[in-house]
Amino acid sequence: MPRITPRTLKGFRDYLPQAMLPREALIATARDVYRSYGFSPIDTPALEYLEILSGNGSDETDKQLYHFTDNGGREVGMRFDLTVPLARFAAQHAQELGLPFKRYHIATVWRGENTQRGRYREFMQCDFDTIGTESAASDIETALVIHDLLQKIGFERFTIRVNHRGVLNGLLENLGLADQALPLLRALDKLAKIGPEKVAAEMERTAGATSQQTAQVLELAALTGSRDEVLAALRPMVAGSETGEAGAERLSEVLGGIRAAGVPEERVELDVSIARGLDYYTGMIYETFLGDLPGIGSVASGGRYDNLTEAFTSQRLPGIGASLGLDRLLAAMEELEMLPNARTPAEVFVPLFNKEMLGPLLKITTDLRAAGLRVELYGDAKKLGKQLQYANRRGHRIAMIVGPDELAADDCQLKNLADGSSKKVALADAAREITLLLEGGDD
Amino acid sequence: MPRITPRTLKGFRDYLPQAMLPREALIATARDVYRSYGFSPIDTPALEYLEILSGNGSDETDKQLYHFTDNGGREVGMRFDLTVPLARFAAQHAQELGLPFKRYHIATVWRGENTQRGRYREFMQCDFDTIGTESAASDIETALVIHDLLQKIGFERFTIRVNHRGVLNGLLENLGLADQALPLLRALDKLAKIGPEKVAAEMERTAGATSQQTAQVLELAALTGSRDEVLAALRPMVAGSETGEAGAERLSEVLGGIRAAGVPEERVELDVSIARGLDYYTGMIYETFLGDLPGIGSVASGGRYDNLTEAFTSQRLPGIGASLGLDRLLAAMEELEMLPNARTPAEVFVPLFNKEMLGPLLKITTDLRAAGLRVELYGDAKKLGKQLQYANRRGHRIAMIVGPDELAADDCQLKNLADGSSKKVALADAAREITLLLEGGDD
Repeated sequence: MPRITPRTLKGFRDYLPQAMLPREALIATARDVYRSYGFSPIDTPALEYLEILSGNGSDETDKQLYHFTDNGGREVGMRFDLTVPLARFAAQHAQELGLPFKRYHIATVWRGENTQRGRYREFMQCDFDTIGTESAASDIETALVIHDLLQKIGFERFTIRVNHRGVLNGLLENLGLADQALPLLRALDKLAKIGPEKVAAEMERTAGATSQQTAQVLELAALTGSRDEVLAALRPMVAGSETGEAGAERLSEVLGGIRAAGVPEERVELDVSIARGLDYYTGMIYETFLGDLPGIGSVASGGRYDNLTEAFTSQRLPGIGASLGLDRLLAAMEELEMLPNARTPAEVFVPLFNKEMLGPLLKITTDLRAAGLRVELYGDAKKLGKQLQYANRRGHRIAMIVGPDELAADDCQLKNLADGSSKKVALADAAREITLLLEGGDD
Repeated sequence: MPRITPRTLKGFRDYLPQAMLPREALIATARDVYRSYGFSPIDTPALEYLEILSGNGSDETDKQLYHFTDNGGREVGMRFDLTVPLARFAAQHAQELGLPFKRYHIATVWRGENTQRGRYREFMQCDFDTIGTESAASDIETALVIHDLLQKIGFERFTIRVNHRGVLNGLLENLGLADQALPLLRALDKLAKIGPEKVAAEMERTAGATSQQTAQVLELAALTGSRDEVLAALRPMVAGSETGEAGAERLSEVLGGIRAAGVPEERVELDVSIARGLDYYTGMIYETFLGDLPGIGSVASGGRYDNLTEAFTSQRLPGIGASLGLDRLLAAMEELEMLPNARTPAEVFVPLFNKEMLGPLLKITTDLRAAGLRVELYGDAKKLGKQLQYANRRGHRIAMIVGPDELAADDCQLKNLADGSSKKVALADAAREITLLLEGGDD
């Protein structure tokens, strides 16, 4: 028969076990942490009416949308993020959900990205949001969730940078530059890249700011020190502006709450230079950087928004949320050698000596599983060396060898596949001995 | 601004927390069981080249495929099952994967189904397969995995029906009807629905079988009794046919292995009447029925196939696999009242008395989480009654009430939200006391 070349589309990828195992572990950790704060899972369709997806989006988004006409003549699109679906979902089900509504959503999205920039056209997002409250508690909780996530994943050195959009807006109000916020923020966003002189020049050019005004904006953005020092320094700069004072007050509450919850001081930094996009966020903003790999960019980001659902309903739904950057985190973990090298979830491998041993080994492996172990029983009675080669390649950690002699003597060989060492134990003790060996290996 | 009506496409659905929580629990159970046998996770793209998806499929499948031309002019389609992607994946990565290869794949698929039959156009499949071996061990393991799945999900009364395609084929060979297998199987598939007389009539009409031949086919299909009795009865019927004898021999090995592994006899039945589709399976076949809801149909099905990858490569890859019917199982669990009614994963609810309590409660809830509890802290200091109403509606199980007086006295009220009972305990004992209350409630 004519054969079709097996291949994936450009910008799409297969996940082999070695890549998928740490992915599933990371997602499980995110799920556990989200749940521990009372966030509930939801899911929405991959396909939506095109007008739902593009109604809210920018031109850039529209260009990247996968869309087509379905067999029923409907214009449909594949979701490109989880925020627009959340807005549609919240507007549609608000009555039934009740407020505040805390949800997490871990799902695939599609974007026709330019793959030359190393981007994929299919990837997973991992969002959590609290909708229907403006409470400081939900702002604080967002930072706590990010903190727990990073810690549970296994990072010790990381910094959550927080800011409030009202602070800079307040200063601009005081300087009479409120109407020029957009070009000023655009310029300020380039601070780390092009330095203060060039930013000042751009501000003067695009926003018509005086050199004295730009100096004050840059002074705010340059504030450093402890959280309390930065807070003390910025308060006078925004004094008199309602927006600015409210922003500073909320920052103070949020930082106090994070401290009260017991988060180590060095893990949360007040960084008045971060802005995170120009239009969307209206209150607190969060970015998270790894101490050992800051250059990889923020691995968990988010913020507060005024009104999620305005495209769909007149009911005003403010909210706050953030997103864990799965791909970026996995890349970082790989670079930092935090990922195991296994291609199998089963720690234990049991070779098959001969066909007659199959019955007894089925019983023995069933008992090991009942004791909580993950066990692969090889199905073909090939040469032992071949079977152990398979086990080594897969990354099983322990081979439990039971041949006819061992079975007759009610014992077995436990072979540590990492170092080749071996140990004879009674069959009745095997589950306990294997558990001990595995725990030892984890240290 | 003009508003867009929030709605989902016909045949698509949102999952609200109440539906999503049991879904996630079921998927987690499936994942745990698959892993416990050494099956590894993989994932493949939702979008594939159209020729990959339709090359293997039937006309029926092609009609249901969501497909379109992407911005790069490629003809692409959304996967309609996980088997075709597995075939493409295995052919593409065989060298790197090594054989045998055991994978599970839990992912969404799309089909433009007729929604009038109550079908959805987007649903999740939950497959496991072993590729590259014809061993009896992998046939046995397939039944063991299904057994563990059903048991871990919480079912006690269920039957896995097994058969081997070679048995009926062997009989047909002996009857000189091998060339008429297709119309005969089609007729036989209707046995439960239309009864033996009408099946016999159809066999005579469409396959040109004599009444004596149809009587023998129906005699085979009607065999009942214990596994050993059925096996003993069918052996003489297939004697002399290589296919039939090999099928009977494999059935005997598989049933023996399932018994050796300790599966209770009543949970596995040899049912020579099941055929499961006409073309695909070539060896063992499996169906699973719930004792309390047999009418819902098979909740876990699968079988052995000769060559998964023939559309993509000349390398012959036989395999065996099965699939857990998530939607059907969830429907059954709902009908059997096996699903909890909660809309939140958090057992514990902590109301906020006033803003001054926020700091202490952040510390207290952090400590509860560190003790392994899932805790939602309410963020707005509304009236206690309102907050408890929210907690009741969400399905939190215990409210931990700490007002200023309790804080001063280092204690708290634990309120059982199901029965309204209340208990005062020291703050230091709260985590332990809550854990005890929750365990009591689970009994």
